Amino acid sequence: MPGFQRHVFVCVNERPPGNPKGCCKSKGSEQVRDELKKQLAALGLKGAVRANNAGCLDQCETGVTVVVYPEQVWYGHVTVEDVPELIERHILRGEYVERLMLPDQPHLAGRLSSPALVRPPAKEK
Amino acid sequence: MPGFQRHVFVCVNERPPGNPKGCCKSKGSEQVRDELKKQLAALGLKGAVRANNAGCLDQCETGVTVVVYPEQVWYGHVTVEDVPELIERHILRGEYVERLMLPDQPHLAGRLSSPALVRPPAKEK
Repeated sequence: MPGFQRHVFVCVNERPPGNPKGCCKSKGSEQVRDELKKQLAALGLKGAVRANNAGCLDQCETGVTVVVYPEQVWYGHVTVEDVPELIERHILRGEYVERLMLPDQPHLAGRLSSPALVRPPAKEK
Repeated sequence: MPGFQRHVFVCVNERPPGNPKGCCKSKGSEQVRDELKKQLAALGLKGAVRANNAGCLDQCETGVTVVVYPEQVWYGHVTVEDVPELIERHILRGEYVERLMLPDQPHLAGRLSSPALVRPPAKEK
């Protein structure tokens, strides 16, 4: 049974072309998800961190939308180029990436960090 | 910006017919998601609680899989008939529904409850 230290949900919802809100899929969310999965796997974090597809997270205008649990930090306008920083700072060190955070997250009560990840033991070869 | 008190992710992943693990979609996950969304809306909980589609949560054998954040409580074998109890007990009162919990969730450290939901004020008509 997984007890993920961080569980990253990436909106991959698709809306019809021409929808004024746009959608995360058309903004590259699948590439963001793929890059997250690839880099997390390369770091040996399977079992500790999971990146998941999510349906519409209701933040279409500011997509690609990513939310990291359990701390519930919302990120917007995320691109593939942002993935290394999200992993290095937030996922590993617990430091939220302020420049990507959506505004007005009162549930965080001003917190900008969570405990650093406890790295799983390296697998024997 | 949403600060959900509880965010419920329902796996709606589909695997090809004949996959030995099965998949949550073939076990009725879309109906579970729809019923969750319907009942949460009827209770006026929009903004406080959200039910979301999720991609594969890697618990295919024990699907339909549901995980409730921020507490990260994992449920398995969830059916449409279980939705009222999940909402009444876990979502509203914060009491986890033990009979549906997947085994071995050490990240909960034995906790079986979280704070009750703070109900949003009723909208004026």
